[in-house]
Amino acid sequence: MDELLSKTKNSQKELLLLNDAERNKCLCAIKRGLLDNIDSILKANEKDVKKAKENNISPVMVDRLLLTTERIKAIASSIDSIVALPSPINLVEEEIVRPNGLIIQKVRVPFGVICAIFESRPNVVVDIASLCIKSGNACVLKGGKEALETNKELVRIIKESIAPFVCSDIVLLIESTSRETTKELITKKEYIDLLIPRGSKGLISFVCENASIPFIETGAGNCHLYIDKDASLEKALSIAINAKYQRPSVCNAIETILVHESVASSFLPMLYKEFSSLHIEMRGCPKTRKIIPVFEATEEDYYKEYNDYIVALKVVASLDEAIAHINHYSTKHSEAIVSENKEAFEKFFTFVDSSCLYLNASTRFTDGGEFGFGAEIGISTSKMHARGPMGLKEITTYKYKICGNGQIRK
Amino acid sequence: MDELLSKTKNSQKELLLLNDAERNKCLCAIKRGLLDNIDSILKANEKDVKKAKENNISPVMVDRLLLTTERIKAIASSIDSIVALPSPINLVEEEIVRPNGLIIQKVRVPFGVICAIFESRPNVVVDIASLCIKSGNACVLKGGKEALETNKELVRIIKESIAPFVCSDIVLLIESTSRETTKELITKKEYIDLLIPRGSKGLISFVCENASIPFIETGAGNCHLYIDKDASLEKALSIAINAKYQRPSVCNAIETILVHESVASSFLPMLYKEFSSLHIEMRGCPKTRKIIPVFEATEEDYYKEYNDYIVALKVVASLDEAIAHINHYSTKHSEAIVSENKEAFEKFFTFVDSSCLYLNASTRFTDGGEFGFGAEIGISTSKMHARGPMGLKEITTYKYKICGNGQIRK
Repeated sequence: MDELLSKTKNSQKELLLLNDAERNKCLCAIKRGLLDNIDSILKANEKDVKKAKENNISPVMVDRLLLTTERIKAIASSIDSIVALPSPINLVEEEIVRPNGLIIQKVRVPFGVICAIFESRPNVVVDIASLCIKSGNACVLKGGKEALETNKELVRIIKESIAPFVCSDIVLLIESTSRETTKELITKKEYIDLLIPRGSKGLISFVCENASIPFIETGAGNCHLYIDKDASLEKALSIAINAKYQRPSVCNAIETILVHESVASSFLPMLYKEFSSLHIEMRGCPKTRKIIPVFEATEEDYYKEYNDYIVALKVVASLDEAIAHINHYSTKHSEAIVSENKEAFEKFFTFVDSSCLYLNASTRFTDGGEFGFGAEIGISTSKMHARGPMGLKEITTYKYKICGNGQIRK
Repeated sequence: MDELLSKTKNSQKELLLLNDAERNKCLCAIKRGLLDNIDSILKANEKDVKKAKENNISPVMVDRLLLTTERIKAIASSIDSIVALPSPINLVEEEIVRPNGLIIQKVRVPFGVICAIFESRPNVVVDIASLCIKSGNACVLKGGKEALETNKELVRIIKESIAPFVCSDIVLLIESTSRETTKELITKKEYIDLLIPRGSKGLISFVCENASIPFIETGAGNCHLYIDKDASLEKALSIAINAKYQRPSVCNAIETILVHESVASSFLPMLYKEFSSLHIEMRGCPKTRKIIPVFEATEEDYYKEYNDYIVALKVVASLDEAIAHINHYSTKHSEAIVSENKEAFEKFFTFVDSSCLYLNASTRFTDGGEFGFGAEIGISTSKMHARGPMGLKEITTYKYKICGNGQIRK
């Protein structure tokens, strides 16, 4: 493994020599490569899907894994949006001229080598490789075993496509999919500059507990929706349905709805009617259960990321109680307030300590694409380095270039 | 400890309610408090110094610990430069208006609670508390046992001074100075958002190995000076003397000088003459030792941060060899090139992977004050979140505030 990683690290220098137009050429070549190899990708994917079915993997997971001609075309064309983005590299973010004549420039630069560890969905391979190339980073990819054949074929195509423009070692797929390999990989500080674990809670905790390389925690999403006393209940209802029901398995779906007591008796019956007809299981606090006939919510429920058609409900006496609840139980991902009261939403924005705070909109928008970042490399729940959806800028760092003419310190 | 930390975390909300003018009032009150209490500070410091002498601590360390009226005045007036800085808080760094009408603002906010763990120098207490208050952060301070009495008195004055303006719990000194306390402290994820270890290598490694809270590594400084074939040898010599001799115990002093072979026979004798007269011990590679009579440098020497009047020398065949040497041995702190050749220094700037890169200037300028940041909270050698000197902006993070009028995701 050291030999492969060392090659990747060394090849990253080549990326530093390319300008943005040249890096875009690599991306366009990858797009063409994918479109020219649809058949071979489908064939590789078939093997993975067949094995998944043999292993009785859930239909939802098989669907995450499955590629079709349509889906491959969509993956390929998502590269266009990355090509179109301005490159963050070599941007002078600040220039300080000191009294002694030193000129200090703060310049955005690639991290170096980024290692992404992820599960199932094969589009992640293309997204992350494209974002890394565009931002001057080499990448080490380690996917899950369920998608191994597909990932191998995708990486083969990526390497073949970029070879005319840059050393193809800048993209490395780790083909061993065991936890032991992961454990080894996440300590290779001399070759890897940044780790991004992306996937299940189990995978992410494993990386965070065992890594000696700096990492950005992603994905845990215990998100909240708070219906204020001054809310439009129509907006509240449509946001609640969207944020819980549209795609419950994702991290930006909501898990708990907090309702101000002064609107609880009007809002909760509306919600109950809609959620019942959508077969969403509701679990409520004692105050909720005085208004609508739902299961009891335990303390544990409020900590849970259900990723399912289940929601916890709680009636709160005040905005302050809502804020305190969110700051206590949340994973600092995304939270929304529905309110027409400026004082209320400004307080919510100031005191809720999460990455993405919404006024009168669904938490489902926390997504690189929806933010206009092109693809995303993950959604950070950390407060250090990057928060929320991470695009190109978030996988770069900076250095100071300081020009003098002989200055020494007095 | 949990009770104290919980109080600190809760009190941080009060800081969010203050505007910059009000936070500055706190800082000005601290300055006044220090100047009004010089006698009591000196008295407390006397106890620490007496104990240090009894414990046969080295004169250099005693000097680091010692406060005088002059030094207290200097510490107090350094607060002025922090007051004068613009506040990074609530700055809208980006505003994205999406086609669906969502307005996404990226807004700079405090981390929350910052914990600094440091050794000896008592000015650190005032610097860090001031930077934290200015940036809306509460702070937990843990100093070394040698400075305990001084630190206690300084924190007493700080708390008393800010009490009319904000809850004084926003500044907490941990009075137990044991390693066990540190070990416990650096896992208190529920109360602390960011750890900054500042001090000896031993302290920093201890924190990095045992922390479960995100931290920024600081201070390790194996810095290099490279004399290019197109260098002005006069500039090279004065920078070499300044960067090695002016204050060898600090992290931004150089440890190794790399000399291009085409100027080695002219430069090394000049260097030898000056360094010998300054009693700087020189250790060189075989090529160096053919030119000047110095000790032999081992492989180990090139890894060392001497923090002393010792320097390693190496003759290199090319700029590429110099860059490869630096990227291999450096701690990614600060490196300088002396050259009049644009192509050479641009290559150095592009390929050397360190935080601060100097052209024709001493590495000794890597310092928050010298960069115009007011005081500094430390010098990062990490590539994540912040690099180089860390001032106000580096102890903040951001959140996204997203305003809609009922948007849901399709």
